[in-house]
Amino acid sequence: MSRDQGTGPAGESPAAAGDALDYRSAGVDIDVANDAVRSIGDLLAMTQGPEVVRLRAGFAGIYRRPGSSRLLLASVDGVGTKIMLAVRTGRFDGIGRDLVAHCVNDLLVHGGRPLFFLDYVGTAKLERTWFQEVVRGLAETCRDLGCALIGGETAEMPGVYHGKDFDLVGAIVGEVEEADLVDGSRIGAGDVVLGLASDGLHTNGYSLARRVVADRAGDDLDATVPGSTESWADALLRPHRPYLHAVMPLVESRRVHGMAHITGGGLPGNLSRVIPDGLTAELDPTRWTVPPVFRALTDLGRVPVAEQYRAFNMGIGYVLVVPTADADPIASALANAGETVTRIGEIASGGPGGVRLSGVTGG
Amino acid sequence: MSRDQGTGPAGESPAAAGDALDYRSAGVDIDVANDAVRSIGDLLAMTQGPEVVRLRAGFAGIYRRPGSSRLLLASVDGVGTKIMLAVRTGRFDGIGRDLVAHCVNDLLVHGGRPLFFLDYVGTAKLERTWFQEVVRGLAETCRDLGCALIGGETAEMPGVYHGKDFDLVGAIVGEVEEADLVDGSRIGAGDVVLGLASDGLHTNGYSLARRVVADRAGDDLDATVPGSTESWADALLRPHRPYLHAVMPLVESRRVHGMAHITGGGLPGNLSRVIPDGLTAELDPTRWTVPPVFRALTDLGRVPVAEQYRAFNMGIGYVLVVPTADADPIASALANAGETVTRIGEIASGGPGGVRLSGVTGG
Repeated sequence: MSRDQGTGPAGESPAAAGDALDYRSAGVDIDVANDAVRSIGDLLAMTQGPEVVRLRAGFAGIYRRPGSSRLLLASVDGVGTKIMLAVRTGRFDGIGRDLVAHCVNDLLVHGGRPLFFLDYVGTAKLERTWFQEVVRGLAETCRDLGCALIGGETAEMPGVYHGKDFDLVGAIVGEVEEADLVDGSRIGAGDVVLGLASDGLHTNGYSLARRVVADRAGDDLDATVPGSTESWADALLRPHRPYLHAVMPLVESRRVHGMAHITGGGLPGNLSRVIPDGLTAELDPTRWTVPPVFRALTDLGRVPVAEQYRAFNMGIGYVLVVPTADADPIASALANAGETVTRIGEIASGGPGGVRLSGVTGG
Repeated sequence: MSRDQGTGPAGESPAAAGDALDYRSAGVDIDVANDAVRSIGDLLAMTQGPEVVRLRAGFAGIYRRPGSSRLLLASVDGVGTKIMLAVRTGRFDGIGRDLVAHCVNDLLVHGGRPLFFLDYVGTAKLERTWFQEVVRGLAETCRDLGCALIGGETAEMPGVYHGKDFDLVGAIVGEVEEADLVDGSRIGAGDVVLGLASDGLHTNGYSLARRVVADRAGDDLDATVPGSTESWADALLRPHRPYLHAVMPLVESRRVHGMAHITGGGLPGNLSRVIPDGLTAELDPTRWTVPPVFRALTDLGRVPVAEQYRAFNMGIGYVLVVPTADADPIASALANAGETVTRIGEIASGGPGGVRLSGVTGG
């Protein structure tokens, strides 16, 4: 079972200049939302028979069909309020890429290869120009990742959506041989944690990022991000990176003990989902360079350090936990496939459990 | 390939009292939206290899996995602006039922049995009370229809959604043995068209219905629907009927030539999708009793007769096209399974093609 609480929006009430900004001040109370999501557990359970594969931590729903050795995986996602930046700038092709890459990465965490994708667009009034750009991004990314775009729905709902705003939702289905399923259960003490660089914020932290730019950077998306040579618009709209082509060969060689896709909740929120009880992932954030856009956002927003790593991916978009003996060859293989790979930590026995970021959380 | 243009909303500009209301005056221009949807055909095609089963008229996307005789079917849908009636009345359990039933019926058109379902809720602020009610409706209907609810996503996006409004999207995956696939290609002259009664508007026509109630019925949802004993709220919120249990045994006996789920576009818009070239489905609307809620809406709104049958299902929620020799036993089996069955027409050679409703369209 997979049920995510996405993190979205920016609230409307301005914070006093100089205050620290966090998700709550940006209008999203993750605790209240998580409580609502937890409250439905019994309702979901009554629909689930033995055909549903229950993982301790699922990035996707997993379904076993009688008589087949291949499991089906499925996930539904949106792109959050990144869509508002697309509308504001009139740049629409990237969010299609975002959505497909996000969905494909979620299946990949369990070793899933994508089969097909469907989209939903809700809006007040469908316009051919932006709709084509969105679908172009979806279709080109689907093609690049070997995934068929087999359907979709567009709904014009002017009472629910307003002006040029719209929402974009994707559903993906993939498969994995049951023997290749990756669920973190093989993670053990001494394993190495490899981080793959992100291409930017991907699709998380946009509530806070938009709030920071609005309140602390003159709300000017054409201005240059401090410490970089690119504009806020370019930095914030850069699409989500898909890790499929680099990671899938490792899945099929069965050398990966666990993986995590770093989305809402950041490194601690996502990697901790796959760390077995009694183990702690000890991560050292000094081992990788946090890209300028994250430094600028967290500096301008005076975002507390623990909050930084929960709101943003901080430069690491995907994580693999691998046996120590395989760590170097796996890192080389990933680098040869075009990824920027960093050994960001190790798995230790005991400890507080979950993820410890030295200098950030509990250490 | 399946790509639907859902019909949604009610525009904001009031029509003069006494004018005829149609979808365009209610804020939805189906032609413009259909043009946008058609414009993306080439983009979808570039993602689709031989594994995608292309039907002349698809109610679902269909995917063939190498080495398997079972096809996967998938569909994504929303519930349109019916959701605004749920918000306005604070009655949330029905829309979960609506969404699952709608999705299950779409797969059923091709003989598909549902496997699993995922949902997406986008809103400004997630509240436990209504969220639980929505998920309860989803879960209970999934359980009743033998479908596992294996995942979902909630996204808080206060910049996109406003107040208590939200959108609800569902993705369903099912399967069918390739030999049992129903696609309308076996439909021939002399076949009989059986209509199964709907339980109300299901999930289509709510733009127009809300507009009629607002402009012509004092916007009072507690008032009684003319010609009936129930309120507008009760009539309009009645959930979408699922036809799975009654129809699936007929699919497995391979006695059905074609089916249609009557959603946006009504009887002519949906049944015509499965009628082969050179044939016409000749339907006689006098053979069934149009329920009071449709009569009230079309009378109050002075909706032109051809528009009535495109905007609303007018009492027929699902259609089967069957061999004439099997029509009586199939009708009996459906009636025994709890359906209200009417022989609403026959398939004729020649004619204009598609669907002809006598006294309504072209005859």
